[in-house]
Amino acid sequence: MTMTGKPLIESDRVEGTTVYDPEGNSIGTIKRLMIEKISGRVSYAVMTFGGFLGLGEEEHAIPWHALTYDTSLGGYRTGITEQQLRGAPSIYRSPDYSWTDRQQEQELHDYYGAPYYWGR
Amino acid sequence: MTMTGKPLIESDRVEGTTVYDPEGNSIGTIKRLMIEKISGRVSYAVMTFGGFLGLGEEEHAIPWHALTYDTSLGGYRTGITEQQLRGAPSIYRSPDYSWTDRQQEQELHDYYGAPYYWGR
Repeated sequence: MTMTGKPLIESDRVEGTTVYDPEGNSIGTIKRLMIEKISGRVSYAVMTFGGFLGLGEEEHAIPWHALTYDTSLGGYRTGITEQQLRGAPSIYRSPDYSWTDRQQEQELHDYYGAPYYWGR
Repeated sequence: MTMTGKPLIESDRVEGTTVYDPEGNSIGTIKRLMIEKISGRVSYAVMTFGGFLGLGEEEHAIPWHALTYDTSLGGYRTGITEQQLRGAPSIYRSPDYSWTDRQQEQELHDYYGAPYYWGR
């Protein structure tokens, strides 16, 4: 993540921040972060996108390292496109998805082309 | 941090969670987390404590690793006492405190007897 100003950011500032795609289009908002308890590392950002007037919104967990803060945009930029989000496995809050399965997490990071947050 | 249930926790669940001292007394609430941008690691939990009916509340940044989730209490337990909090250097949002100074961060962690979050 690009260093802008202070080295630490507050979680309730990240929550609600807009996410932009490579073209600078707003594709969603960060709803919350998911933190790995043992290490205290942020592993995913849960993004809401789509919907209209609050209806039909979807939530997707994207790898934290797929986001870079962009001061000119005042939000996070990601290489992930809206199409990729729509085609992604619906893992967040899916009963079939196991957050204890590193293999599944690896596949998700590979899908988005993001570096793994574990073992860094 | 003790593993309870799923390995990941949501940031907006941590925010608002009660913090208990070694005797099981509620000493405050987690207001927000502070995240090290470069590594994505949670470094501090900002705790509000004291005050009455919303007045006179204080905010203190305590090391993330000074907290352990306790399922029986339904909140975080810490070895930090209210006395220690009152005597701690007022670093959070202090213009004199530099979050880029590892030495200052080390002194704060030593004050609370908490392991350093960097280099883990």
